[in-house]
Amino acid sequence: MSAPGFAKTPKPPYYAVIFSSQRTDGDNGYGSMADRMAELAAQQPGFLGMESTRGADGFGITVAYFDSEENIRAWKRNAEHAAAQKQGRDVWYSHYELRVAKVERAYNFHTSQIG
Amino acid sequence: MSAPGFAKTPKPPYYAVIFSSQRTDGDNGYGSMADRMAELAAQQPGFLGMESTRGADGFGITVAYFDSEENIRAWKRNAEHAAAQKQGRDVWYSHYELRVAKVERAYNFHTSQIG
Repeated sequence: MSAPGFAKTPKPPYYAVIFSSQRTDGDNGYGSMADRMAELAAQQPGFLGMESTRGADGFGITVAYFDSEENIRAWKRNAEHAAAQKQGRDVWYSHYELRVAKVERAYNFHTSQIG
Repeated sequence: MSAPGFAKTPKPPYYAVIFSSQRTDGDNGYGSMADRMAELAAQQPGFLGMESTRGADGFGITVAYFDSEENIRAWKRNAEHAAAQKQGRDVWYSHYELRVAKVERAYNFHTSQIG
């Protein structure tokens, strides 16, 4: 998925979908799908934000934040997303791990917080 | 932190520390610290694994998995880690977000699962 930087999430509790993946070689339509899925995710009920990055080795981590497990399940079942999930298994990823977690505590730091 | 690929985590529940960060320019000792912290984390009680990646834009995500919140707190207080956290705020990161979450469900996919 594309890299929009930091997610501006509310105070916990909320939910995180942690998606770790290894890309196969070649684009094969991945870039445009990733952009479309980021756009579509942002339209889902309860979507709170997303953070995503991928190294030159093709290993990437995307974390999407939602307000509830129910809204995560609805996003999983979204028809266009479900088609992308199948294409992901067929073409784009050699391996992925997906974990659904409840965020209980959060901290942050910005340079502007110094002194 | 260094990129060891996928973490081999047990069945949920367990905990995830999701660390999203923006690096400042220049290495300034970051690489050797990251290697040392990955080594040190792996020695902590309750450590289950780590996944980490960073893009060319300096935005990175590291997720460390632990068996309990108590062991996450102990790792936060580890003296060598605490010194690295301070150096992170002083030198290596312009911004970070740290979230502690309880992993409730997990799925995975490997190419070898096909057919």
